[in-house]
Amino acid sequence: MANLYPFVLEMKTMLSNLDRWLVTAAEHAKSKKTEPDALVVGRLALDQYPLVKQVQSACDTAKFTASRLTGKEAPKHPDDEKTYEEVRARVGKVVSYLETFTEKDFEGAESRKVALPWIPGGNKAALGLDYLVSFAQPNFFFHVTHAYAILRHNGVPLGKMDYIGALPPLLDM
Amino acid sequence: MANLYPFVLEMKTMLSNLDRWLVTAAEHAKSKKTEPDALVVGRLALDQYPLVKQVQSACDTAKFTASRLTGKEAPKHPDDEKTYEEVRARVGKVVSYLETFTEKDFEGAESRKVALPWIPGGNKAALGLDYLVSFAQPNFFFHVTHAYAILRHNGVPLGKMDYIGALPPLLDM
Repeated sequence: MANLYPFVLEMKTMLSNLDRWLVTAAEHAKSKKTEPDALVVGRLALDQYPLVKQVQSACDTAKFTASRLTGKEAPKHPDDEKTYEEVRARVGKVVSYLETFTEKDFEGAESRKVALPWIPGGNKAALGLDYLVSFAQPNFFFHVTHAYAILRHNGVPLGKMDYIGALPPLLDM
Repeated sequence: MANLYPFVLEMKTMLSNLDRWLVTAAEHAKSKKTEPDALVVGRLALDQYPLVKQVQSACDTAKFTASRLTGKEAPKHPDDEKTYEEVRARVGKVVSYLETFTEKDFEGAESRKVALPWIPGGNKAALGLDYLVSFAQPNFFFHVTHAYAILRHNGVPLGKMDYIGALPPLLDM
């Protein structure tokens, strides 16, 4: 295969899907005579993140996957969203950021050393491929799926095709 | 990068993590004077799959990802699990199946035509890479994360490191 670019493109697709779930969620809230902002604090367990933080975490994981694999500086997003519209705007900012990358940016990314500054000691790193496969992807899908699950738990009418967004490009057998 | 093998290995890792969540879940149920089997039918919304079907779906997605990308025949698993122990046994069967694969099996998998027999018409396919990135991975993480979320929603004491299992192999910067 060429390089790791398709895996980051899929994160952009999933964030675009997430934005559509949020639109459906607002319609659902309005149909229940409730403000869409009420969904922002929804959560599945008291000691789990609410929707807003699931979305922020999905956004940050996608953003840092792209920037770390390509050796670029990521834009700063201060996690200050409080309303439904602010949550959607955060998603939009990261989708736009991911659109600035090309396949060429990811040349050699699989063997690039990716810094993991939050690990005690502060000087640890992982190979780009290991970082993507064993850390970035599981975390990204964790948060994006929790956002979906919080909405479903609140009765938002979504189904598996809303989650996946679209089938892969189809060929004849 | 070499080929798509690491992405299937990660599915094996996540299923092994899932098995550990189930062990913790049983201990939690017992501490609440409840049979672990009670968790098997837990769900987040009436029109979402219960735990047993989330686990079956995660298992099948991993199994078929490996078999379809390598052109092998997958073992049949009839989705007849009803108890906690049967659910764990299903996970164990698929982990064992995934352990039979080697990196060599995935040579050329990214450009292999993967049949998608459930699509209307019955003769559709996708390239291996597209199938993995846009279909198999999002679906796999959807189901494994929903299994985790159902357990957390039922009070099972799990955290993010239980989800991710282990950090990627670390290097010094």
